[in-house]
Amino acid sequence: MSDSIYTNYPPELNPAQKDFLVKTIKDWATQNGLMVRPHLSFVSKESDPYGVLATNAPVTLFPSLFPRACFEEAKALQTVYNQLYAAITCNEEWLGKIMEDLIDVDDFISGLWKVHLSVKKEGYVQNLSLGLYRSDYMAHAPTNANTPSLKQVEFNTISSSFGGLSSLVRKLHSELLTSPPGYPISYPFHPLFESNVPPENTAVETLSAGLAAAHSAYGPSKSTPALPTCILFVVQENERNIFDQLALSRQLTTVHKIPVFRLHSTEVLDHTSIPASNPSRPLIYRPPHSPDTQFEVTTVYLRCFYAPTDYTSERDWEARTHLERSAAIKCPTVLNQLAGSKIIQQVLAETAGPDHLASFMADTDPATIARLRETFAPQYDLSSSGRGRELALNPETAVNHVLKPQREGGGNNVYKSAIPDFLRSIPESEWKRWILMELIRPPAEAKNVALRSDGEVLSGKVIGELGIYGTILWDQSNGNVLQNEQGGWLMRTKAKDVNEGGVATGFSSLDSILLY
Amino acid sequence: MSDSIYTNYPPELNPAQKDFLVKTIKDWATQNGLMVRPHLSFVSKESDPYGVLATNAPVTLFPSLFPRACFEEAKALQTVYNQLYAAITCNEEWLGKIMEDLIDVDDFISGLWKVHLSVKKEGYVQNLSLGLYRSDYMAHAPTNANTPSLKQVEFNTISSSFGGLSSLVRKLHSELLTSPPGYPISYPFHPLFESNVPPENTAVETLSAGLAAAHSAYGPSKSTPALPTCILFVVQENERNIFDQLALSRQLTTVHKIPVFRLHSTEVLDHTSIPASNPSRPLIYRPPHSPDTQFEVTTVYLRCFYAPTDYTSERDWEARTHLERSAAIKCPTVLNQLAGSKIIQQVLAETAGPDHLASFMADTDPATIARLRETFAPQYDLSSSGRGRELALNPETAVNHVLKPQREGGGNNVYKSAIPDFLRSIPESEWKRWILMELIRPPAEAKNVALRSDGEVLSGKVIGELGIYGTILWDQSNGNVLQNEQGGWLMRTKAKDVNEGGVATGFSSLDSILLY
Repeated sequence: MSDSIYTNYPPELNPAQKDFLVKTIKDWATQNGLMVRPHLSFVSKESDPYGVLATNAPVTLFPSLFPRACFEEAKALQTVYNQLYAAITCNEEWLGKIMEDLIDVDDFISGLWKVHLSVKKEGYVQNLSLGLYRSDYMAHAPTNANTPSLKQVEFNTISSSFGGLSSLVRKLHSELLTSPPGYPISYPFHPLFESNVPPENTAVETLSAGLAAAHSAYGPSKSTPALPTCILFVVQENERNIFDQLALSRQLTTVHKIPVFRLHSTEVLDHTSIPASNPSRPLIYRPPHSPDTQFEVTTVYLRCFYAPTDYTSERDWEARTHLERSAAIKCPTVLNQLAGSKIIQQVLAETAGPDHLASFMADTDPATIARLRETFAPQYDLSSSGRGRELALNPETAVNHVLKPQREGGGNNVYKSAIPDFLRSIPESEWKRWILMELIRPPAEAKNVALRSDGEVLSGKVIGELGIYGTILWDQSNGNVLQNEQGGWLMRTKAKDVNEGGVATGFSSLDSILLY
Repeated sequence: MSDSIYTNYPPELNPAQKDFLVKTIKDWATQNGLMVRPHLSFVSKESDPYGVLATNAPVTLFPSLFPRACFEEAKALQTVYNQLYAAITCNEEWLGKIMEDLIDVDDFISGLWKVHLSVKKEGYVQNLSLGLYRSDYMAHAPTNANTPSLKQVEFNTISSSFGGLSSLVRKLHSELLTSPPGYPISYPFHPLFESNVPPENTAVETLSAGLAAAHSAYGPSKSTPALPTCILFVVQENERNIFDQLALSRQLTTVHKIPVFRLHSTEVLDHTSIPASNPSRPLIYRPPHSPDTQFEVTTVYLRCFYAPTDYTSERDWEARTHLERSAAIKCPTVLNQLAGSKIIQQVLAETAGPDHLASFMADTDPATIARLRETFAPQYDLSSSGRGRELALNPETAVNHVLKPQREGGGNNVYKSAIPDFLRSIPESEWKRWILMELIRPPAEAKNVALRSDGEVLSGKVIGELGIYGTILWDQSNGNVLQNEQGGWLMRTKAKDVNEGGVATGFSSLDSILLY
């Protein structure tokens, strides 16, 4: 059933239709801030020394199809997932046991764990913890299935991005579907376009409300005399995706009336301090453009420090530790970031051994736990011999799998028939750094057309990933949840590899969805 | 008095303050669509073949000061000015007599007049005429004056631009003045910033409402069977200022729910037609991306055809004539465009001879006419000997004047001591192409800092020009006015010439105003 829907979608474009859409989208993106800073391979530093140029975010010309039931299920499960990852983060002992195994093979995980241990030794001064999450899924539609099911690709606990821009893509596609008013002809006719627009997307509102809730829960200034309070976005230098982040700070400033500042991760130690004389350890920010005005940071929102490349020197680890030991609410804490590692996802999905999922969700009804478990793709630990190693090393079963580094934001995946040789090429002691996951089979006939940031227009078969945003604010000392919300989504669409794991046709675009 | 205010404004910026403002403005512009396509000298066609790159519009870091009384007077007079230019446009005989003199020396005016004559011969089928105007002023503050007065620089009757972007600059400066919420520190302290933001700017709403009024006044389709109706923006190819225009079409589409299409002036004859069989001469538009769907154009909004360079061949004149003879309401008609020529401004300001201003405004009370006349800078005809030629040729009086081509949108001005030699270098028969105007003396100490589109930041003494937007819809056959509104403004700020008519320091920026 579902395949035939994808076969005839999207409608074909003749050259005039394509020209019109590309031109309209290009201009719309610039008018509405659906933008990125251009990649250095497109605009060199020399040709734009002051960095003023911007270009459209990569975006599909059409919204992609997505099964309505899967979308609704993903939304329904988001607050359950939020609660699960808060509960995992609260169980430091359990988390520690899993991390211990990795510390000797993974410097990054090891570094993060050390940050936690050093702050734990001194004693944490902030019990509240904020998560801004995105759970990513695919519609799983193997040829023998009647209806697609929802399978989780990953769960992001740090720097969950694209909430700001994905709301705009939803608006772009909705406007194209209904323009001009009364006589929609921006797209060629297609039956699925009749009275259909992408569902509401409240990502900006939801994520900002999460940050605002933490800001408010922080309470009054801990400084004497009291200081004005603010939220601090800690960001990467040369961030190309800055307009995605600015959508959140604009909402915080204009709607919630909260001061927001941006600070490069490399400048954290230059412009923030924790007064040694104050046992509450408030994090004080002095804006370089107005150093006489000090602000107390209620909430540190990390849009950096998620990947090993964000830590180029000891000073970066020092900065992370500095933030972690402060009284500011962290989004996320180190523990919450570690809870997002791929290995946690694998342990939860493990069918052999103790039922971790059920114990983390003791207060949740079994039916809901079962629905959550339904979204897990089978995945296996490779640390010791067993089912995982068998499936990975046997060429016949390997082709149904993907090998992923167990930490979030990590390197490249290894696909299918390449898995056995890859594993044999690395020391067996390092196998535990990898998770074997059964391949999710997204609709095989899905297609779209994408406008890249350099203006190239490419079309072909695609794989779409749907992310659902959620926020949760909890007390790490007792697990009490102060706020738990879901809202907003992201569709990201990539060109399908030409030769199944070979050369990519070259696009990864923001998208929106039409439900069917 | 006023000079001392300008002396201490804007506040000095240290490097950190300047960095912060420039970075904030650069990013704000991109997030909010305060953008232009980059000039070819900045981004070549080869380095951006698909034309996706955009950059911030040139913009001042601070709002400029402007006398409150002058601003209020300019707003109060706008509907009077609208009415005046509608009345002039209705008096084809009077207009014709003035144009006649120019036809032999000015091919452009001659061409426009011919378009009018040819349509007149066939008979106009549309009596309604729409004006979207901008009256430009300076605060005139000669050293001997106590308070600055308002002097008109020019009155634009075609393609009055920057309404879309100037509303955004107002928003940018207002946000900077009040951010972060509760603790405004984006700008260094200055007493004029206390509880002061630029006045409301409704340019987008006002200009769009004017177009919507015309669309509605057009009435039902004149085609059989009836066609859906639309507004057509006719624009230049390679328009860099496109986002200014899109602000109006977005408002028309989203608020007024009116279909709007954009068409290059070079494509008018390809995609529009007037059925020979229909004596009402409806203008039919076939969108190239959906040629089976025909629209009837109620209103043609020209953002082109205002300068000689817009007419590169006979085909462009044919396109203009084609639009003019159609039933669509033109914004503006050829006659209305001609009414905006500089020579009309000069004839109205003429103190010798008949009082044209009073006769065009027979229904207006004399006090209002006097206030209008107060905004005229003294200006003189050079077609025959008299006061104008005396002032222009005498080096002592020439230094207080500027020589301007008499047509709107024309070439370069000639300033001060350069005037006598310039006039002597051209045949006396061509002197009538020029208007001599007494120099307006804007506040000598006005300063600002500007961020150019290429990212350069320049500061220095400036000259500011305030434009007030107005719209009027009238019946050309009887002078009846259906709608007459003012609303919205533009501040444009230019670097003062270093050597009074010599090399410019190099910026011309969008700006906003702080009233004092």
